[in-house]
Amino acid sequence: MTKKENKLAFNAQAIQKLLDSISFDAAGLVPAIAQRHDDGEVLMLAWMNREAVRETLETRRVTYWSRSRRSIWRKGETSGHVQKLVSFRIDCDGDTLLLGVDQTGPACHTNRPSCFFREVSADGLVEISEPLAE
Amino acid sequence: MTKKENKLAFNAQAIQKLLDSISFDAAGLVPAIAQRHDDGEVLMLAWMNREAVRETLETRRVTYWSRSRRSIWRKGETSGHVQKLVSFRIDCDGDTLLLGVDQTGPACHTNRPSCFFREVSADGLVEISEPLAE
Repeated sequence: MTKKENKLAFNAQAIQKLLDSISFDAAGLVPAIAQRHDDGEVLMLAWMNREAVRETLETRRVTYWSRSRRSIWRKGETSGHVQKLVSFRIDCDGDTLLLGVDQTGPACHTNRPSCFFREVSADGLVEISEPLAE
Repeated sequence: MTKKENKLAFNAQAIQKLLDSISFDAAGLVPAIAQRHDDGEVLMLAWMNREAVRETLETRRVTYWSRSRRSIWRKGETSGHVQKLVSFRIDCDGDTLLLGVDQTGPACHTNRPSCFFREVSADGLVEISEPLAE
């Protein structure tokens, strides 16, 4: 087992302690930022409930809670654009997660690498990346 | 005027169009991720209302909405740890902001560079950065 794999070999007790450190909101959710682990590109923000946090840590495949579908959302389950978990951080007050991920394919449903492809300029919003070729 | 400054010279009409593109939540807020513009370090996540977005774009100094104090929060107003706006992006569905910032001093109230200084390891949460010296 490599050092990186060992670093993410969580046992049930460690996961429970982490869950106790997270401040879930009134809806039982916490925002999670997905950041590409190697170059730091911020890919997306989605939400997790306790079950999604637990599954993400147990499987090392990033799983969110879909607020629109009101169900567990295993990122890439249909598209194949999975996120492998590399690191898992929480912020000072425990109400935001920062995930270092190894992203397969585009993160965005528009087929762009990142969901943050619109940037404010003097002319309004401009698109700064193109959809990836299929 | 340099090219970068010109890029962020927003007029009132551009700001209004941007505001119309943002999906504020039921509380009138949107999460904003602050990322250090040069090395990609994610510093913090905080919230903005329409007024905070407008002030951030007009002044190029990042301003949030403090949910705990229920007031406008001009980041660094008391600490001096201001965030100068470098870039301002929104995501595909308009419900998250990504700010490229030039951070003065630590971003975190614990005096650490980033609020995300706790990382999950096999032993539970470990601190991965120290508070900066005063």
